[in-house]
Amino acid sequence: MADKAQIQAAIKVQGEVVRKLKAEKANKEQIDEEVAKLLELKAQLGGDEGKHQFVLKTAKETLTGKYGEDSKLIYDLKDQGGELLSLRYDLTVPFARYLAMNKITNIKRYHIAKVYRRDNPAMTRGRYREFYQCDFDIAGQYDPMIPDAECLKIVHEILSELELGDFRIKVNDRRILDGMFAVCGVPDEKFRTICSTVDKLDKMAWEDVKNEMVKDKGLSEEVADQIGNYVSMQGGMDLAERLLQDPKLSQSKQACAGLMDMKQLFSYLELFQVTDKVVFDLSLARGLDYYTGIIYEAVLMQTLPAPTPTSQEQNGAVGEDAGVSVGSVAGGGRYDGLVGMFDPKGKKVPCVGVSIGIERIFSIMEQKAEASAEKVRTTETQVLVASAQKNLLEERLRLTAELWNAGIKAEVMYKKNPKLLSQLQHCEETGIPLVAILGEQELKDGVVKLRTVATREEADVSRAELVNEIKKRTSES
Amino acid sequence: MADKAQIQAAIKVQGEVVRKLKAEKANKEQIDEEVAKLLELKAQLGGDEGKHQFVLKTAKETLTGKYGEDSKLIYDLKDQGGELLSLRYDLTVPFARYLAMNKITNIKRYHIAKVYRRDNPAMTRGRYREFYQCDFDIAGQYDPMIPDAECLKIVHEILSELELGDFRIKVNDRRILDGMFAVCGVPDEKFRTICSTVDKLDKMAWEDVKNEMVKDKGLSEEVADQIGNYVSMQGGMDLAERLLQDPKLSQSKQACAGLMDMKQLFSYLELFQVTDKVVFDLSLARGLDYYTGIIYEAVLMQTLPAPTPTSQEQNGAVGEDAGVSVGSVAGGGRYDGLVGMFDPKGKKVPCVGVSIGIERIFSIMEQKAEASAEKVRTTETQVLVASAQKNLLEERLRLTAELWNAGIKAEVMYKKNPKLLSQLQHCEETGIPLVAILGEQELKDGVVKLRTVATREEADVSRAELVNEIKKRTSES
Repeated sequence: MADKAQIQAAIKVQGEVVRKLKAEKANKEQIDEEVAKLLELKAQLGGDEGKHQFVLKTAKETLTGKYGEDSKLIYDLKDQGGELLSLRYDLTVPFARYLAMNKITNIKRYHIAKVYRRDNPAMTRGRYREFYQCDFDIAGQYDPMIPDAECLKIVHEILSELELGDFRIKVNDRRILDGMFAVCGVPDEKFRTICSTVDKLDKMAWEDVKNEMVKDKGLSEEVADQIGNYVSMQGGMDLAERLLQDPKLSQSKQACAGLMDMKQLFSYLELFQVTDKVVFDLSLARGLDYYTGIIYEAVLMQTLPAPTPTSQEQNGAVGEDAGVSVGSVAGGGRYDGLVGMFDPKGKKVPCVGVSIGIERIFSIMEQKAEASAEKVRTTETQVLVASAQKNLLEERLRLTAELWNAGIKAEVMYKKNPKLLSQLQHCEETGIPLVAILGEQELKDGVVKLRTVATREEADVSRAELVNEIKKRTSES
Repeated sequence: MADKAQIQAAIKVQGEVVRKLKAEKANKEQIDEEVAKLLELKAQLGGDEGKHQFVLKTAKETLTGKYGEDSKLIYDLKDQGGELLSLRYDLTVPFARYLAMNKITNIKRYHIAKVYRRDNPAMTRGRYREFYQCDFDIAGQYDPMIPDAECLKIVHEILSELELGDFRIKVNDRRILDGMFAVCGVPDEKFRTICSTVDKLDKMAWEDVKNEMVKDKGLSEEVADQIGNYVSMQGGMDLAERLLQDPKLSQSKQACAGLMDMKQLFSYLELFQVTDKVVFDLSLARGLDYYTGIIYEAVLMQTLPAPTPTSQEQNGAVGEDAGVSVGSVAGGGRYDGLVGMFDPKGKKVPCVGVSIGIERIFSIMEQKAEASAEKVRTTETQVLVASAQKNLLEERLRLTAELWNAGIKAEVMYKKNPKLLSQLQHCEETGIPLVAILGEQELKDGVVKLRTVATREEADVSRAELVNEIKKRTSES
């Protein structure tokens, strides 16, 4: 964000613009637009630090100051009015803005939509600049850790049901991290930047992380080593209990608050039967600025073969995750302050949520399907309406409409006289399980020959019974 | 599109840029980027008019020359590289581009996504600058009018099942329009612009449309009147047959081809039982350039109360549809040339599709729901897990997890000790039909008190039977 003096200077200039337009009796629309800009500048100046005021537009300003060092990945654009706009970076900030604009204090919802990052894409691992996210969030003032535990249960359920192989859900708490930094002797103003460095531990060795802390970010070796000691710890409720007794860490009130909540969380996770995959991991740091409490990240344990880097990737962040696991497929945490940043009065709505990387997950599922040579059915069609002889297009269309009207997913080939063989082949290729075959004889007898593609069995079914028979056969399979 | 001389000049300059970079041994990425620009310019120059060549990027150039006079509604943006980009105007052009890029000659799919128009929004009637479209398209070389008839059947089915009131689907054919313009004496180069004017007949009186043809577009009164005679005609298969006998129109080969297909179409529509709502209407013109055959548009007959125009609308296109019907809710047609425009060799893939204005439809459904004071259920939750006494949070969470694991949509309040009354009220407000109530006694007896919210009936159900009982009760309702 611009500093105070800059904003005050801009307000002065903008005030002149408005006065001039009013003096010239310019048209109302133009004046309104300039007044809006003035109010926006004044709002930016706002009250104290914790109480930013925004004119609520889906604009660059909405995204500024929420993503920490990741902000460089925001896609900027200018609209025709010259305003600075950005493409949506994630679904969390827009969700918080939506709650504030509509004064919603209480909601649970999911949202699947596209987001954009100016990152180095890695197609082979399902990493693109434009990609879908799938978010689930619970907003509202509730008793501690209950919605948080539900989010973890949901991640556990999704990753288990999709059969993506073994996985872990790492959890930590922003307050434990901050408390740890404080007792290790990291200066307050360096918490966020050191947090970003810790966040790299899943991709870099401790030695390199330490190097960055000492050489780039100015920590003493001693402080870095103390951090290194803590961030190597992993466990469950037992670790939270042990750290509550830690002579150093227990001196931090906020670390203790985080550790008490962590214990509470694990007790709920036991009830939800998901502790087998959840690990309290002090190295988990997530780079985003908006988290205030629990944070978590799900990683798949399976390792993919190292892909050949493309020339584009060679120019970019090579080595970042070449040949290692697909890594994070979901992440999230608690962000109790974000909605308040968009509310004119700073009214807070506590939130906790999770973001599922569905494109990464899809890319893994596709690779699995390819590897297993399993045939993926590409259609939901239950039955193809076919004919054995020529000149039966009209009869085929009539029967197709009958089936559609009865709620059957039916298909017909768009040819006047398709060969029976090509109709049957179409079913085999696309995985349509049934064929309803019409011929002169069948029409005379008021029946349809119903064929099961897999077994090639055929049986005459009366026209009146056809819908029920198709429903019966497709519900069995 | 820029003219040939401009492009040739640009190619010369760009050639110099590339040569200079190569001489300087600039980095590969930079050279590649400039070479790509050069190739793009050369592609624009391309071969003959009907065989445009594009470097396939999702950029402004993709959208240029596809939308006729509607092009002014395209949102332009610049990316950080300074390239001219646009926001997606519809889903048809991106679909055609996708087919060409992936060499797909055969597909049937739907797509729901956002599109953007720099139009005057009219919130009260569900018209926004950013809105969802829902498209269904059939691509491939097939026998005439079969996929076209299926598209109309789908529109008929959607509008019937949503119970939006009476509707009509107007159909016409670009070839009939062009033939009509030709036999009326409209010069070739004015077909498209006169087509745009005819397209306004659903919003303007004939007198005003004629005025525009004569005063703005330079037709003679006589020519305009001849057009006026045709565009007042409406009918079904009978009209197609009559026009095939029309001494003037039957002189146009392309009009006859269109009329023959129209007859064919109506014969299929009869088999699909949808002729009650489909009208062959010669005034239907749709402004977009890419249609080559049949075109159609669905309109609701119901009239909404005239909303009070907002100040924003007053500045804009007031009167355009103030107090009239909500108008078009779906439209589409055949576009056999569009895919070929994106293919390097101009290879054509015939397509027909329909676009459903889902936000308009939603806005109508919401107004209907409000008017009928019908309670809309806001959740899919089948059962709330509740407790009658204090200190049962853990038991509630345990039961909730049991139900989730069995595939039941269950919810639990995120409070340690919620009052039973507030739990029951939550169900009434959100429409959750069942409550599973736990108490000390129920836990001792191994049962759950299952309450039906609507009737307030309660019955003890054994824990082992609970999942089946919930499934049974929710499938009944």
